[in-house]
Amino acid sequence: MPTPTTTSRPAPARARHPFPLRWNDNDQYGHVNNTVYYEAMDTAVNAWMIARGGLDPAGDVIGLCVASSCEFRESASYPEALEVAIGVGKLGRTSLTWDLHILRASDDGAVTDGDGAAPIAVGRFTHVFVDATTRRPVPVPDGLRAAVAPLVLEPPALEPGPGAH
Amino acid sequence: MPTPTTTSRPAPARARHPFPLRWNDNDQYGHVNNTVYYEAMDTAVNAWMIARGGLDPAGDVIGLCVASSCEFRESASYPEALEVAIGVGKLGRTSLTWDLHILRASDDGAVTDGDGAAPIAVGRFTHVFVDATTRRPVPVPDGLRAAVAPLVLEPPALEPGPGAH
Amino acid sequence: MPTPTTTSRPAPARARHPFPLRWNDNDQYGHVNNTVYYEAMDTAVNAWMIARGGLDPAGDVIGLCVASSCEFRESASYPEALEVAIGVGKLGRTSLTWDLHILRASDDGAVTDGDGAAPIAVGRFTHVFVDATTRRPVPVPDGLRAAVAPLVLEPPALEPGPGAH
Amino acid sequence: MPTPTTTSRPAPARARHPFPLRWNDNDQYGHVNNTVYYEAMDTAVNAWMIARGGLDPAGDVIGLCVASSCEFRESASYPEALEVAIGVGKLGRTSLTWDLHILRASDDGAVTDGDGAAPIAVGRFTHVFVDATTRRPVPVPDGLRAAVAPLVLEPPALEPGPGAH
Repeated sequence: MPTPTTTSRPAPARARHPFPLRWNDNDQYGHVNNTVYYEAMDTAVNAWMIARGGLDPAGDVIGLCVASSCEFRESASYPEALEVAIGVGKLGRTSLTWDLHILRASDDGAVTDGDGAAPIAVGRFTHVFVDATTRRPVPVPDGLRAAVAPLVLEPPALEPGPGAH
Repeated sequence: MPTPTTTSRPAPARARHPFPLRWNDNDQYGHVNNTVYYEAMDTAVNAWMIARGGLDPAGDVIGLCVASSCEFRESASYPEALEVAIGVGKLGRTSLTWDLHILRASDDGAVTDGDGAAPIAVGRFTHVFVDATTRRPVPVPDGLRAAVAPLVLEPPALEPGPGAH
Repeated sequence: MPTPTTTSRPAPARARHPFPLRWNDNDQYGHVNNTVYYEAMDTAVNAWMIARGGLDPAGDVIGLCVASSCEFRESASYPEALEVAIGVGKLGRTSLTWDLHILRASDDGAVTDGDGAAPIAVGRFTHVFVDATTRRPVPVPDGLRAAVAPLVLEPPALEPGPGAH
Repeated sequence: MPTPTTTSRPAPARARHPFPLRWNDNDQYGHVNNTVYYEAMDTAVNAWMIARGGLDPAGDVIGLCVASSCEFRESASYPEALEVAIGVGKLGRTSLTWDLHILRASDDGAVTDGDGAAPIAVGRFTHVFVDATTRRPVPVPDGLRAAVAPLVLEPPALEPGPGAH
């Protein structure tokens, strides 16, 4: 999917995770509460790691969230459905920073990303991998490291700062 | 779908609403917390009323939950997906009692209800319809009444009691 | 508080657990969503069991919710604070059914129960105690059984209701 | 409380908001899920604005969250109680960025901040004030602006961090 060329590289395809909304996601202002976007990010990246990266939540190595951030650009409202587009901003020795786009799913299930349509929220989520018992940092497991490689965004995307995109 | 005969009536088909789970739905015992089943029921019936029954949450008539109950038979765990099978236990003048089955979605999206497979939880949810401003009871709107008619379960299902099924 | 007499017995004092509300507890109708009352009940009885009944959530015996119900009588709204008044409706061999009143805390922290003021919601919550590993039922632990004894409501309190006994 | 001197200024006192935990705040790793810290921040600053700053969630001007971030330093676990220490990092024309410390409440209700004890999480939360109907930005209401003034942190407090200023 990432097709390097000598002059420019298209961004790698992001993995997608559907995130339908719930009645109680809407707060009293009638739209999805800000905390729900973090539930979406947490759910999407853990689901991806379990399905694709060999993570076993009951296993020896688990990923703990040490930092997260989100910039909210447009509101959404149940009964809409959202989708999380998953990329990796930084793959370190013991940590992994996800670069996440929250998208509005269209009526037919298609989402409006990749061809110019803007995400309604943009977030980052940093996992540090730890020994499940001692809770001390350990290297990102090899299987996970290999699995996320295609999701790593190219250097130009690695701007510093949580709100920097 | 409901095909009355002189000797027996098959149960009407229940409407279905998918309910994928979220990472934080699992509590510290490693399975979906009991409160999440109520989120599932609330979400499913409101989504159905909005999509099929003409409910407008910002409209003149809204449905308030006055009673609910659930019997939990088996546990579930994210990243599983659930589904709510929606029936109507009682259709009154100003209220509607939903009769709900929580099902485990199989890997291929099929659910295990209707052919003998048992729901993992069985619940009831009573909405009273009220004027959005005065919050006083009003008749179930005609459009909704017509829409739910095919979901009304036959008398034998109308056993009394929240845990009685 | 429980002062037995020959002719009648006042209800035993219920244990109290404060339950302040959160911004996102209010749903788009501007009041506390029904599911939050179950969070209140779950939180109150587990906190009580941990503090007073010797429950260790990481221990050998845990309590799983097998049934719950709630009747909602009045609405509440963040930033109000609520309180749960804890009684025991039934103490069985392997299970315990809590009889719970949700009260509105007054501005000075006092709550409006016990002297005629009505709870805004009334619920029931049944725990079955199980071996944490096998998840098979075991007797209510002796320490917990002794601790809850003063909370067991007298037969006259077992009035019929939505969480019919 | 902020007592300017020629050579140094002590940090202004932060406002405090108690945040007891709930059973279902713990995720399957046995500690408070990261999303709950955002619930704590959202709850604390809205409660403060309603109680002290004249915010009426049903009024003409409301505050919408446009960005948030959190750095998680230590874990917590129900039935612990937390507390949010509220400061203001930036007071703009139409927006307000809260600078928030999440503290572990000690057994006696005292919290471990202000005298060297470290918060378990540090977050930022930016509200933009908008017309409730048009959702277009409006100036921070005068009453709120006056109320938050004592909470504005002095420049020396703008230390670098994950929510880099």
